Amino acid sequence: MNTKEAVNKLNELELKEFALGHAMGIMSYDDETVAPKTSYIPRGKTMGVLSEMSYNLSTGEEAMGLLDYLKEHMDELSAEDRRRVEIRDKQARELRAIPVDEYVAYSELTNEASGVWREAKNKSDYKLFEPYLGKIVDFQRRFAGYAAPDRDPYDYMLDLYEEGLTQEKCEVFFRSLRERIVPLLERVKAAEPVDTGLLSTPFPIPAQRELAHRLMTIEGLPEESVIIGEVEHPFSTGFSKYDNRITTHYYEDNFASSMYSLLHEGGHALYDMHSDDRYSFTSLNGGVSMGVHESQSRFYENIIGRSREFVELARPVLTELCPALNAYSGEQMWRAFNAAAPSLIRTEADELTYPLHIMVRYEMEKAMVKGDVKTAELPEMWNALYKEYLGIDVPDDKNGILQDSHWSGGAIGYFPSYALGSAYGAQLLCKMSETLDVAGAVREGNLSKISRWLEEKIWKYGCLLKPAELMERAFEGPFDPNHYTDYLEKKFAEAYNL
Amino acid sequence: MNTKEAVNKLNELELKEFALGHAMGIMSYDDETVAPKTSYIPRGKTMGVLSEMSYNLSTGEEAMGLLDYLKEHMDELSAEDRRRVEIRDKQARELRAIPVDEYVAYSELTNEASGVWREAKNKSDYKLFEPYLGKIVDFQRRFAGYAAPDRDPYDYMLDLYEEGLTQEKCEVFFRSLRERIVPLLERVKAAEPVDTGLLSTPFPIPAQRELAHRLMTIEGLPEESVIIGEVEHPFSTGFSKYDNRITTHYYEDNFASSMYSLLHEGGHALYDMHSDDRYSFTSLNGGVSMGVHESQSRFYENIIGRSREFVELARPVLTELCPALNAYSGEQMWRAFNAAAPSLIRTEADELTYPLHIMVRYEMEKAMVKGDVKTAELPEMWNALYKEYLGIDVPDDKNGILQDSHWSGGAIGYFPSYALGSAYGAQLLCKMSETLDVAGAVREGNLSKISRWLEEKIWKYGCLLKPAELMERAFEGPFDPNHYTDYLEKKFAEAYNL
Repeated sequence: MNTKEAVNKLNELELKEFALGHAMGIMSYDDETVAPKTSYIPRGKTMGVLSEMSYNLSTGEEAMGLLDYLKEHMDELSAEDRRRVEIRDKQARELRAIPVDEYVAYSELTNEASGVWREAKNKSDYKLFEPYLGKIVDFQRRFAGYAAPDRDPYDYMLDLYEEGLTQEKCEVFFRSLRERIVPLLERVKAAEPVDTGLLSTPFPIPAQRELAHRLMTIEGLPEESVIIGEVEHPFSTGFSKYDNRITTHYYEDNFASSMYSLLHEGGHALYDMHSDDRYSFTSLNGGVSMGVHESQSRFYENIIGRSREFVELARPVLTELCPALNAYSGEQMWRAFNAAAPSLIRTEADELTYPLHIMVRYEMEKAMVKGDVKTAELPEMWNALYKEYLGIDVPDDKNGILQDSHWSGGAIGYFPSYALGSAYGAQLLCKMSETLDVAGAVREGNLSKISRWLEEKIWKYGCLLKPAELMERAFEGPFDPNHYTDYLEKKFAEAYNL
Repeated sequence: MNTKEAVNKLNELELKEFALGHAMGIMSYDDETVAPKTSYIPRGKTMGVLSEMSYNLSTGEEAMGLLDYLKEHMDELSAEDRRRVEIRDKQARELRAIPVDEYVAYSELTNEASGVWREAKNKSDYKLFEPYLGKIVDFQRRFAGYAAPDRDPYDYMLDLYEEGLTQEKCEVFFRSLRERIVPLLERVKAAEPVDTGLLSTPFPIPAQRELAHRLMTIEGLPEESVIIGEVEHPFSTGFSKYDNRITTHYYEDNFASSMYSLLHEGGHALYDMHSDDRYSFTSLNGGVSMGVHESQSRFYENIIGRSREFVELARPVLTELCPALNAYSGEQMWRAFNAAAPSLIRTEADELTYPLHIMVRYEMEKAMVKGDVKTAELPEMWNALYKEYLGIDVPDDKNGILQDSHWSGGAIGYFPSYALGSAYGAQLLCKMSETLDVAGAVREGNLSKISRWLEEKIWKYGCLLKPAELMERAFEGPFDPNHYTDYLEKKFAEAYNL
């Protein structure tokens, strides 16, 4: 075997990994959008088999032999191929540490847990979900122990979603947010309330579906390669640049919920779709981390989507599809879309209180992974944290600890990336504004100017650069969360005439 | 290895085969129902990889060694396990005859061809599809040559869909149909026409969706394990008894199209769902052949669904959901649903002319496989056969040769099973009527009596018995197509007062 042959073998291997991931991803999408209730039985079996195949493929003798060969010939490889080897090496070390039977059992558990979580949420009955959550945390803690016995398990989990993130960094980051957001929120609460009546204007669901398609076009998502699914808990998923799915939900009396979830998921899809063409069907394709991913989705949702200019751009579409909205000016809409107040549901939260929802989850996850709190007592802890951070009482588990799907799927350590992403986004806006009239581009409906900037600085790299390096290059300097808090202060001072 | 261990290994192997088939099946369903246009690119790659995995799994050294062991220990196996060995042996011989690279290339070709066929149909442009059809026929002919070099290739293909079926049997069968259906159709054409105006009563699509769910319930399909998808060309697909999907299309001015396609696909789903529980996730699960499958689907669509009693049963639902239909009596509806006249589209054809549509396709396939006709000349041949068999002119390829999806997916040899299934169904009705008041069961809305009979005689066997043996046991005698032509003569004499 020479180096060229080894790279060809690497391409073949990664195509196979793509195929298994693709099949499992489509099955999950099908599950979330249409599959019948009892389908979890065969799906559990199939997911178990495919996970095992995937595990064996990625960590089997052939793959490991290839990896060893490539590691010995790093100096002959391109920068791209070196990064592929580095990614594989890290993943293989982590995966091989986990016994295959545990890996398969875990995959079957999370498949089952996602159905149970949905039922528990519908019934607002945490007790149903509790044993599953307990087992998932146990598995995750054990996996962390296998893969990184010398590290703190929660640090290991954070790193899975944002390479390089630690509790130490989180503490600094969240403290700096708390110090400025909590007093800002106090000022907002003391200010004259914004009239949010227009948000409950009845907006027929077929018209909201049409709105979703119009927004997709404005955002620059091509209909031929992106579809919109309907789900309870919106998410996005992509299988190469040729197949992306964003999802949303429609409530007749809350059109903004669908509107902004669509812009959010659309941001994820844009990032996923614009990796360099040469990365297709390799491990370099797609987003590099959850933090960077959220920086893109929250950029389109909030920084663009909740700007005055975007609201003015969207207003004619909104009034065409829902004439009752003609009663409101663009200014009134903008204020309503930016109304801030403590609330129960993260995904419906405003831009200002959102990071507080994340901090609750961060504290919860820390405690769960440390084992500081019994699973039976988690709802109590959740409710106490909402009282402490947001000043509100949680009426039931459906509107409390059961609201998010993440933990049921095993995603512990994911949440902090949402807040980090918001902060990345604000710093990207500053940098972008040095060379681009961002507000002007939105005003003229030419979002492609913004997209091209992001493609050039972020998207095209796929997974080539580590997240921190990618962002520092884009920022041309270190990450500084003050851009985010400055942005929030400026915006809410304006929206609330502070 | 002892026999028990070998059977355990067989179970494991068949579960893996199920998983790969399941994943590919969900991806196909996703393709047909929702996937974005350009998704064929990654899906083609993934289908190629999964097909290759499946091929290697089923025909690799381990599987073949196991098969050899089991064949040497047949006398120690249960009847079920002996049949599994027999099925595997036949399939493995057929598969191993095909070189893996051709198998993969073929799988990628049909994935691409299905997108091209759809486009060609939309544009009514056969030229787009022609090269794909040519290649598919070439592949199929070559595969037949590899697998059964001593047999006629089209006989080999017929046997894939209906074990034991040959052109010789088809010729006898179709001749016996032609001799009685053609004169019967002449009498119908000469009779006073039935008023079919009610069929174009505008029936809003949301109400048709509700109708589909009501019919599903009447037919005995549980909502928790069966969903209804919307597609251009209805089909059904099942992944164990816990996950079945039937599909339909809705035309506002043709509610009967959706109504009867739903009953048809529901018949497939009922058969698929009711294999003996012990067969789950083994090769014995599900329907044994396309002919038997169609016997069930067409039984529910026509023999039950187009009976006087069923129309009376459905009438209150129809008038509730579409009050304009109150203008018509059950008798008028029954006659309209059974109106017979030559037409262009197979899936919309009435029960009487339907087999003539099949005969056209049978003649086409025979000629294609023999190579008697150039692919460029196939539309001409199609149109000439429609003129000869049905007496009508085909205006364009969309309403002609491009109407069916089968050939684009590589299904050559499938069509005859539709006619065979209709004939099986009529003979089942005769037999069932000896011990069950079929009309009475429908009248009281108790279709489960009929389903239990079919479950006992057909469904529960899964693939345990060969199709001909299964049917002969159910008939308690040989297959005789005169039951079918007797049934058609009686029904249409009544509907047209002949």
